Amino acid sequence: MAKTAPPRTAITPTRSEDYAEWYQQVVRGAELAEASAVRGCMVIKPWGYALWENIQRELDAMFKATGHKNAYFPLFIPKSFLEKEAEHVEGFAKECAVVTHHRLIAGPDGGLIPDPAAKLEEPLIVRPTSETIIGASFAQWVQSYRDLPLLINQWANVVRWELRTRLFLRTSEFLWQEGHTAHATEAEARAETLQMLEIYARFAEDFIGMPVLRGPKTAGERFPGAVDTYSIEAMMQDGKALQAGTSHFLGQNFSRASNIRFQSQTGTDEYAWTTSWGVSTRLVGALVMTHGDDDGLAVPPRLAPAHVVILPVYRGDTRDAVMASIQTLAAELRAQRYHGRPVEVEVDDRDLRGGEKQWEWVKKGVPLRVEVGPRDVASDTVMVGRRDQPAKDKSSMPRGEFIATVPALLDGIQANYLARARAYRDERTRVIDTPEDFEAYFATDEGASGQGFALAHWNGDAAQETELKARHKVTIRCIPTAGHEHSPWADRVMEPGKCFLTGRPAPQRVVFARSY
Amino acid sequence: MAKTAPPRTAITPTRSEDYAEWYQQVVRGAELAEASAVRGCMVIKPWGYALWENIQRELDAMFKATGHKNAYFPLFIPKSFLEKEAEHVEGFAKECAVVTHHRLIAGPDGGLIPDPAAKLEEPLIVRPTSETIIGASFAQWVQSYRDLPLLINQWANVVRWELRTRLFLRTSEFLWQEGHTAHATEAEARAETLQMLEIYARFAEDFIGMPVLRGPKTAGERFPGAVDTYSIEAMMQDGKALQAGTSHFLGQNFSRASNIRFQSQTGTDEYAWTTSWGVSTRLVGALVMTHGDDDGLAVPPRLAPAHVVILPVYRGDTRDAVMASIQTLAAELRAQRYHGRPVEVEVDDRDLRGGEKQWEWVKKGVPLRVEVGPRDVASDTVMVGRRDQPAKDKSSMPRGEFIATVPALLDGIQANYLARARAYRDERTRVIDTPEDFEAYFATDEGASGQGFALAHWNGDAAQETELKARHKVTIRCIPTAGHEHSPWADRVMEPGKCFLTGRPAPQRVVFARSY
Repeated sequence: MAKTAPPRTAITPTRSEDYAEWYQQVVRGAELAEASAVRGCMVIKPWGYALWENIQRELDAMFKATGHKNAYFPLFIPKSFLEKEAEHVEGFAKECAVVTHHRLIAGPDGGLIPDPAAKLEEPLIVRPTSETIIGASFAQWVQSYRDLPLLINQWANVVRWELRTRLFLRTSEFLWQEGHTAHATEAEARAETLQMLEIYARFAEDFIGMPVLRGPKTAGERFPGAVDTYSIEAMMQDGKALQAGTSHFLGQNFSRASNIRFQSQTGTDEYAWTTSWGVSTRLVGALVMTHGDDDGLAVPPRLAPAHVVILPVYRGDTRDAVMASIQTLAAELRAQRYHGRPVEVEVDDRDLRGGEKQWEWVKKGVPLRVEVGPRDVASDTVMVGRRDQPAKDKSSMPRGEFIATVPALLDGIQANYLARARAYRDERTRVIDTPEDFEAYFATDEGASGQGFALAHWNGDAAQETELKARHKVTIRCIPTAGHEHSPWADRVMEPGKCFLTGRPAPQRVVFARSY
Repeated sequence: MAKTAPPRTAITPTRSEDYAEWYQQVVRGAELAEASAVRGCMVIKPWGYALWENIQRELDAMFKATGHKNAYFPLFIPKSFLEKEAEHVEGFAKECAVVTHHRLIAGPDGGLIPDPAAKLEEPLIVRPTSETIIGASFAQWVQSYRDLPLLINQWANVVRWELRTRLFLRTSEFLWQEGHTAHATEAEARAETLQMLEIYARFAEDFIGMPVLRGPKTAGERFPGAVDTYSIEAMMQDGKALQAGTSHFLGQNFSRASNIRFQSQTGTDEYAWTTSWGVSTRLVGALVMTHGDDDGLAVPPRLAPAHVVILPVYRGDTRDAVMASIQTLAAELRAQRYHGRPVEVEVDDRDLRGGEKQWEWVKKGVPLRVEVGPRDVASDTVMVGRRDQPAKDKSSMPRGEFIATVPALLDGIQANYLARARAYRDERTRVIDTPEDFEAYFATDEGASGQGFALAHWNGDAAQETELKARHKVTIRCIPTAGHEHSPWADRVMEPGKCFLTGRPAPQRVVFARSY
């Protein structure tokens, strides 16, 4: 018997053929972003930027609802500021963009050169993160306990020079938000750190439809200068972990470095307790790798730049009737609301073949595609395709019913994506108790199917962590305190046991994985 | 008789005593922004940033309603890109931040130095504007007439190294939006340029409450590389002009420099016609200087971060009753809508003296202040102060009436601000026909009262413009085509006449002024 040809997919290669290249092709096919002429920096195209705007809008509302206010601090950080916190400078000096001059002049060969007469006395660093420059402001703003807590957020671009870059996941410049807060007590600052971790987790699950484990990092994985770093960790479709957000309890390290002091209620002079927390355009990459399939991007409805695309199907003489019907349909859909905003509708009347157009929108991941032709107009129906079902499985629906149920259909797709992502993660998570099982689980090549999260007891030291990392490229992603509640292995996370490597007692399991 | 003491003002000095210092004190008193540790860069504080967020929200909606989409391009521009357009590089090379290294290492004296081994082959410029880097993307995105028009906007930070800076008005780093569009024909690109100028003008008048004259600039005042530059020009309360937004018709200059070509409908290979247009955080400075008075900032309601502030007045035993009443009042106010968003309410229950608190909100320019004390609770009234009336002129209103009329009160304040600004500008605009009158009008020292816009016929050359600028610090702000319609001198703008300096015929008058 002849072999049947594999089903054709909109993206080549498929996930199982070459996951890394599949990712690049999904990003390209959805027109999310592209490499720029500047090494390591990306151009975020309109569809990708609209996703980021939606992420921003929802997160910003959550930040404001918890009392945070936005502000803006300088792009440049004096070198001496970076030097104030020893671990911090150690962490960022190796990969930063350094501004040394403030003027170009004509050089000997006619081109421009940095003007030697305009050399800065002190080099400026393009911010890789803003603890030190914001700390300088906080030191001025905080005088008394009455000025606390100080709850500030900034939406900004940052630069960390990267040698190996990948669109959204690791780029030299990226967009992010960084929260910076100062508190009168350690307890308040710790509560803030955990509150923001929970906000990130809620956003990841409720909006991106991406389940996340969360909890503290081990010492070796902390933010440079932090006392404790917490993260949310998601599983991508190659079984690797992606750190999707971090929240840091900074203790008094940065308030000492920046001299953020206040007079307490009892009149004593004290250093404030600070936190910082951030998520970035990396979330767009996380979204791609959580829901994308071999036909391209799949956008969760609550973050979709367009919820519905309407595709006209006509020949010359039926055009007017079809387009008139579509304009009415679009208006009626836009009058519907989905999660507090109007349903977003695109009408694609470009002069392209129907199939080509259809696949463009599949690859962009728009949740609902609607075809309207002369027969649909006559029968008052629409042909509906859902992005969470195979592209060919379209079904005819009465027009009025479709309009009325659009919010429910979108909610269904949103719920589906989360359920699928959760099932995938839960299935690719393994409880591990012995060095042999650990070895066997991670022995296969990176990218091989089947691998994912390993839940194991741990009570080793930093050197042992480093060795595991060197041998298997595996790290402890976090010590999960939440995010596993609905998993079949939920009970196994919190049970005490013995470290799989050292045999020493451990109060709960940690998550090991390869990661982005 | 003894002199009466001058009325006390919340801001010292007053506008008439020292305008420049008054501006700094208003910005400080309203907590809008402050200087940072980085030369020329400002920290935008929460109240100032909230103004910018409101400006962004409204402008962004106007851009999207006219078909523009947001995207994001790299912060860094390779030196060779800047060199592509001769006038452009000439305009920006003198004042740019140059990145030369991508790593710091320990230097001989223990501090960090740029690592000589990490010197960039080609220096990168922190974008002063993005025509060239966006042009590189457009060149790839545009192949055929079907890809046009391309209508893109970017919200971003930019850097232009400035020696003399002033918060919001001129800083080395500032926030802005830059629109960049490409079109198949010159006519379309010119129409886009004018459309965006009109959007800026509408925004200035309808939201900032700031009347603007608008029209083309003379050749000497064009954006480096533009064929035509148009601007909106507002008058500040010292009679000086402030350029509040620009829209540039770039012809094919940048498409030639960046190779943005397309195949036309008839199959020919052509260069696209491009535009760019921008407004910045300078608008916050414009707002301050348009409406601020000797008691501080006055925020137009349509851009106000808070519309109403409620100030509790109580002693210990009346606190609970007063605060309960205020919480209900706040909730009922928030249920009202003002121009498509909920009425924003602050309740200021800080432990400060009532007078001090009151003046803080006057200085922040919140449109309505409401005091509620035990007697107000008993009589079901509130004591209302409007920012467009003297701070002491408060009046008692029935509580229900106040709640119901808040949107109307806010509209009234908004209209008042625009009317006052228009009256001020109209009064300080002079029609001038002779060199002697021109001389006399601008002969007095900068900042002297009475000066403002001079409407005169002009048909001189660039050298004569330069001379007027050198002698009087006066420039042609624009050749107004709109914005004067309701002024008493409206008819004088468009009448033909003879250049006041050369006597040569001129089709209309232009606007001369000192400027920021």
